[in-house]
Amino acid sequence: MNRIINHPDYVVEDAIQGYVKAHPSIFATTENPRVLKRPQAPISGKVGVVTGGGSGHEPAFLGYLGENMLDAVAIGEIFSSPTAGAFLDAFKAADAGAGVACLYGNYAGDNMNVKMAMKKAAAAGITVKTVVANDDVASAPADEKARRRGVAGEILMWKVGAAAAAQGYDLDGVIGVAQKAIDNCRSIGVGLSSCTIPAVGKPNFHIETGTMEIGIGHHGEPGIEVVPTQSAKEMAVTMLNFVLEQQTDTAHPDVVVLVSGLGATPVMELYIYYAEIEKILSEKGIRIHRNYVGNYFTSLEMMGVTLTVMKLDDELKKLIDLPAQSPGLTQAE
Amino acid sequence: MNRIINHPDYVVEDAIQGYVKAHPSIFATTENPRVLKRPQAPISGKVGVVTGGGSGHEPAFLGYLGENMLDAVAIGEIFSSPTAGAFLDAFKAADAGAGVACLYGNYAGDNMNVKMAMKKAAAAGITVKTVVANDDVASAPADEKARRRGVAGEILMWKVGAAAAAQGYDLDGVIGVAQKAIDNCRSIGVGLSSCTIPAVGKPNFHIETGTMEIGIGHHGEPGIEVVPTQSAKEMAVTMLNFVLEQQTDTAHPDVVVLVSGLGATPVMELYIYYAEIEKILSEKGIRIHRNYVGNYFTSLEMMGVTLTVMKLDDELKKLIDLPAQSPGLTQAE
Repeated sequence: MNRIINHPDYVVEDAIQGYVKAHPSIFATTENPRVLKRPQAPISGKVGVVTGGGSGHEPAFLGYLGENMLDAVAIGEIFSSPTAGAFLDAFKAADAGAGVACLYGNYAGDNMNVKMAMKKAAAAGITVKTVVANDDVASAPADEKARRRGVAGEILMWKVGAAAAAQGYDLDGVIGVAQKAIDNCRSIGVGLSSCTIPAVGKPNFHIETGTMEIGIGHHGEPGIEVVPTQSAKEMAVTMLNFVLEQQTDTAHPDVVVLVSGLGATPVMELYIYYAEIEKILSEKGIRIHRNYVGNYFTSLEMMGVTLTVMKLDDELKKLIDLPAQSPGLTQAE
Repeated sequence: MNRIINHPDYVVEDAIQGYVKAHPSIFATTENPRVLKRPQAPISGKVGVVTGGGSGHEPAFLGYLGENMLDAVAIGEIFSSPTAGAFLDAFKAADAGAGVACLYGNYAGDNMNVKMAMKKAAAAGITVKTVVANDDVASAPADEKARRRGVAGEILMWKVGAAAAAQGYDLDGVIGVAQKAIDNCRSIGVGLSSCTIPAVGKPNFHIETGTMEIGIGHHGEPGIEVVPTQSAKEMAVTMLNFVLEQQTDTAHPDVVVLVSGLGATPVMELYIYYAEIEKILSEKGIRIHRNYVGNYFTSLEMMGVTLTVMKLDDELKKLIDLPAQSPGLTQAE
């Protein structure tokens, strides 16, 4: 392992410090060192929008705090859930009486800790409702959707949910539209190399050079199949097959496409890949209303790519188009 | 090599296609497949601002086209200069009669091709003036500054020069302020791993695990020294020593700091590193007026980081603060 860190046990603290120093208008610290909030939060009359998750996925999760974006975030160790206490403190940091929408990903640790935090929040008089992202089509079959993991589709769920809250939706409204956003998202990842958690010091798993793992998770969870590395075009076909076969509603041909590198993928290759995705969708008559191509949801220095396609309706389109400003995603008019 | 490409000989074409498809409001193609321009260019009355360089550094160079940013770009093969013809066509694409500022980096191939293109441009009645970036303090001693390479400081030079052009500066004004911007920039890189040009298929050079190369160039040009990998804090001290010892003017304690990953550096580690930079500068009474932390100027999948510090005066501050919108850098009010 050859990396830019101080001590392997303090990478999360150190990274948080960097984010706060780099973006003082976006981040305010709280009494809990694993909770950041917007300086403006809680915002009177507005539903608080919160997420939380393990570190190592930067800019997710903390990098999506900002204007018309998230209000507070609970931050876990590398690849592991924030504590229940951190989720609770994030709820408190975001709640101004209108309730909190906790929009997070479907992982055992997060589920458990959010549930515990919600109990304590209820006792403290804070109403919290949740949407649990499960956009990763590779992680369980369609008829066991509740077992599916949340991956990069979470970013679109946050964007939509946070935009709705900013537009004055009430808690049920925010929850409803964030649920719709993630229900309309399908994602899949392909891994080309492993990654190393600094405190572990050796790779999490192994991918043979010349092969790629289809359906790999954001923490190296085993995928569906290891195959010889495909061309960008073949990869686009493979991944779209997974994502589109479960997108049955063709009444709304407009979609959002999010292509994220996993950390070590050259930026130019994300665009090579995107060109292939665009070609195939265009041939199918599917219009990309908006696209995001970059390092949006990473896995330390893993090489690989995730594809997320979100179907749009008029409401989602309006919310996804709302300008936003955050370290991870800045979108002008 | 395990990568997301179609054919190693077509990575540049394929990536250009992806950029154009992903950002149709930013990029217009031209008759030269290696020249992109803003759809608005040439803009009547405005100085055209152009750059060009090798590919593999994305989002540089093409990703800095946009609103209040560059007007046209000449695109070379991976790690090699655009042709003279491409530079010439980029000048033509950007010129509306007010002349063209060509702001590029100090590399033999680029120098030669820009010079040839300028001769042809002159013959065609287009006035082109240049600023040649040489911000890499590791590439030659201070008394041989003309031999120094241009690196990530180019981005700040483009930002400033393009902002000046957008604000109505004439050609000499744009050139003057872009020259001041790069004169006020000092950069240095550290490499932790090599990278592989797809058409070559094996690493360009070698960095032993457990060591880092101080002063490495954007194409793996040898640095000053190979040392055992330092902590983020030690790295920050080492790199700032190089950069600051040549920043003698302390009349303006405000600076811009740009921390760029080289392609495979985990995003969280860029922030760990930034926190250390901020601490040291703050102790020295140097104020970071604005910072950029991310993958701004990469070298395919090299792991490592570059640090750029630009001293500010009131004019540079105003220009660096102008909102901008481009795939590589979006900055709101």
